[in-house]
Amino acid sequence: MKKLMDLKRIHVTFVAFFAALWILTAVAHAANPKYVFFFLGDGMANSQIQATEAFLTQRNGGQAWVAEDLLRPENRLKLTQMPVQGMQTTYDAYALMTDSASSATAFASGIKTRSAVINMDSAMAPSTSYKSIAQLAHERGRKVGVVTSVSLNHATPAAYYASVPHRGQTNSIATQLAESGFEFFGGGGIVRPTSAGRSGDTENDVWALLAANGYTVLNDRESILALRSPSMKQKPGRPTPMSKVVAINPVLDGSQAMPYAIDKPAENLSLAEMTEVAIAHLYDRRGGKGFFLMVEGGKIDWACHANDAMATIGDMLDFDDAVGVALEFYKRHPNDTLIVVTGDHETGGMTVGHALTAYTAHYDKLLGQQNSHQHFAANGWRTHRETYGCGETLPENVAMLDLIYEAFGLNWDDLNDYQKERLQDAYEMSLCGSNSNSAAKNRYLYGGYEPIIVTLTHILNESASIGWTSYAHTGVPVPVYAQGRQASLFSGFYDNTDIAKKLAQAMNIREILPVQK
Amino acid sequence: MKKLMDLKRIHVTFVAFFAALWILTAVAHAANPKYVFFFLGDGMANSQIQATEAFLTQRNGGQAWVAEDLLRPENRLKLTQMPVQGMQTTYDAYALMTDSASSATAFASGIKTRSAVINMDSAMAPSTSYKSIAQLAHERGRKVGVVTSVSLNHATPAAYYASVPHRGQTNSIATQLAESGFEFFGGGGIVRPTSAGRSGDTENDVWALLAANGYTVLNDRESILALRSPSMKQKPGRPTPMSKVVAINPVLDGSQAMPYAIDKPAENLSLAEMTEVAIAHLYDRRGGKGFFLMVEGGKIDWACHANDAMATIGDMLDFDDAVGVALEFYKRHPNDTLIVVTGDHETGGMTVGHALTAYTAHYDKLLGQQNSHQHFAANGWRTHRETYGCGETLPENVAMLDLIYEAFGLNWDDLNDYQKERLQDAYEMSLCGSNSNSAAKNRYLYGGYEPIIVTLTHILNESASIGWTSYAHTGVPVPVYAQGRQASLFSGFYDNTDIAKKLAQAMNIREILPVQK
Repeated sequence: MKKLMDLKRIHVTFVAFFAALWILTAVAHAANPKYVFFFLGDGMANSQIQATEAFLTQRNGGQAWVAEDLLRPENRLKLTQMPVQGMQTTYDAYALMTDSASSATAFASGIKTRSAVINMDSAMAPSTSYKSIAQLAHERGRKVGVVTSVSLNHATPAAYYASVPHRGQTNSIATQLAESGFEFFGGGGIVRPTSAGRSGDTENDVWALLAANGYTVLNDRESILALRSPSMKQKPGRPTPMSKVVAINPVLDGSQAMPYAIDKPAENLSLAEMTEVAIAHLYDRRGGKGFFLMVEGGKIDWACHANDAMATIGDMLDFDDAVGVALEFYKRHPNDTLIVVTGDHETGGMTVGHALTAYTAHYDKLLGQQNSHQHFAANGWRTHRETYGCGETLPENVAMLDLIYEAFGLNWDDLNDYQKERLQDAYEMSLCGSNSNSAAKNRYLYGGYEPIIVTLTHILNESASIGWTSYAHTGVPVPVYAQGRQASLFSGFYDNTDIAKKLAQAMNIREILPVQK
Repeated sequence: MKKLMDLKRIHVTFVAFFAALWILTAVAHAANPKYVFFFLGDGMANSQIQATEAFLTQRNGGQAWVAEDLLRPENRLKLTQMPVQGMQTTYDAYALMTDSASSATAFASGIKTRSAVINMDSAMAPSTSYKSIAQLAHERGRKVGVVTSVSLNHATPAAYYASVPHRGQTNSIATQLAESGFEFFGGGGIVRPTSAGRSGDTENDVWALLAANGYTVLNDRESILALRSPSMKQKPGRPTPMSKVVAINPVLDGSQAMPYAIDKPAENLSLAEMTEVAIAHLYDRRGGKGFFLMVEGGKIDWACHANDAMATIGDMLDFDDAVGVALEFYKRHPNDTLIVVTGDHETGGMTVGHALTAYTAHYDKLLGQQNSHQHFAANGWRTHRETYGCGETLPENVAMLDLIYEAFGLNWDDLNDYQKERLQDAYEMSLCGSNSNSAAKNRYLYGGYEPIIVTLTHILNESASIGWTSYAHTGVPVPVYAQGRQASLFSGFYDNTDIAKKLAQAMNIREILPVQK
């Protein structure tokens, strides 16, 4: 009898054990997060992240070379403190160094395609279009927002609402934006809103299309920020709620992008503010089916192309603040929120170390740079260039030495002979359009950038212990960080196309196949 | 009555559920892996890994820029295919760019110390020593093996059996090796086995100490490989089993390190063969308490210091083959084995891209390099140097052009003007000891390396799309890969000191505190 009881007990334990396992598994799979954030740092990889944390440590009063200081939570980015970490390979169908169109396609529709293509196949003349996770989520009733610090029809944001054979077809992309039905777009402006870009492009009036499709376009700081208070979802003076909004930053550069964070004028919005606005607009306190929000820090990449570490770090901090807004939202909705943060590729071949400084780091020197290369080009350098012409030399032109000190904190007398030689060559090149270097050498030294400016950032960066090897993207794998419901999906080492599949799995979108194990 | 039954059923389900949870948790914690492997690629970070996979793709007949080829398992390293991935910050107590002594200390005893210190505190004059996980595991009855491609008393292997205020005290380190009682040492030789190194060092006869402590020293290929067959654990002609072995590679360079894998002579052992020997020696088929085996690919770092991508890749592949040996062991003991693979820091500021090649990769060019920079220095270049002297120039010296083509596959006529200029300057510098460059410029261009050789690897590497920014270590975070029992401990983003804590947790070593969450 006792034996039978024992057997029964064992049987019950076994059944209960497997039942519990089944329940645990079911719970884990069933609960899809209602609010899904995908943050993309364009050009952001390990070097950009580590350099920013070292800078933050220095700026906060610590030393960028002291572990105790570097490890303090307040000196870490919010994104690296998220509990789940993974890594992804970034190459596209035919490039070890992907571009932002093919990588955005990988994230948005899970397709490996060739550089410049958005959500279409990898043939030379693509013919098949693929829907993005954002479009598929929208079809299922989720609200969708797209926020970026560059233009709204730039390659990365485009991949969430458009498919085109080439990213240069910007009018077609903007047309698809206006037809997307997505509830929120925020950040930069629209490139070629009424004219055709690359061949094959449309030539629609996108402003008219936006109006026809019920979009309200806002472009001043006050009315955009007003969206944060729910009562302001009403259009002022009108009873109709603003269901669909395009919020364009009041200050834009020539590429319709928001200014670099390091340069931000007062009337500007930060990426964090844009993210707050997006959340307020997408969040439905009565319930609803939740939202999918993509936020891109697009100018991290541009700063890295220009080999400007301080502009990179400024936009990294701006991006991380935006992640912080989502983390605050997560605290209020911990069981319903998923936040994923990654980069699309590394840009610039940035390294946390340099031949000049070897084992030492001098991030205090970075504090000498006041503004981005772009701001310097349009202000200090432009004025100097208008005053002085070919024939001026260094160190003879004292105004230039003063300007270099003022804008970058670099003192001529502290430079080594090779730095002086490079500045002399670059100054001549910028003033005269030629110097004694071979064309090949100048390509290495300046890429396509203003010789004197890129040489200044190179010298400042190497003095701080930051190196660059390229003006383009590089092919190194990129880390992924995640927090919240189903965040564990993003652990491990996988391909960038798996990001779309994992996001689809988290949102129960079956058109995009789950990752094969 | 039905209600009561229902309540009871609910109660039973709840109890069973939590019991199951408890069992699951208990099982997860209780089962420590019996066989623990820690593989360390010195200087190995994301760039070294990605460049090697791109090379492998090219060498196996694919294209280094085609995703379909890059993603094939046979073109991936074995280590990146391990299921668990994590990442670690690498800075030491007072350096953003750690050295190999402080990082090895982080892995071995979980202490943040300053560069050059091994298993001691971070004070200027360290006074407290810490035991390593290997020593603590040994005290608990595990067998311990230490394998490295560099000298056995180099900083990285030293951290598993020694504590010294400075890595330069190599005789003291070797003395501690001889007194460790560890069952197996394999790889390079011993630096200063009978004389003192840096001040404060001992001056013992380490060979005599090894003999006195029961070590058998083997240094020919046959007798080392014979250890793989269990019957050979007996000392030939003697009934006593060889309980403790020091297996020194028959071919060593001037630093007592094994040659670069790319140069390996026939009588040499690969790191994989050394690992096989170590496993055979440590594994006890009658049971026992298992083992801890550390395997270092030490010359990945040396190749990166010299900015030689092909030597780096050669040693990366050698290292990965050694990981493969552990993965084969894992297949036979899947429930008892843990394998962890990581790097201690990045070296060289290596990047997977370059200003010259931008978005294109040309890894086929790497196939033109026949041997390492070190081999070229001792052979082709030495002969040339003995024949020609100061006053020779390029492209006039045709013998040098032939040598460059033969050794690196570089054709003078295919080089751009800047590459030609750099080769001319470097050739003059190498032949004459001076050139027209400033000393500062030469420091950037050559580090401390032979000008003509480092310039050749720079040019070959950039042509393939690989860049370098430093001759030292850099501060970028480094990935971790793990497989097997308790591998999930190594998921996430953490500090390098956490590696020791996680390994300690996996081996149930309580002296080293577990990671705080």
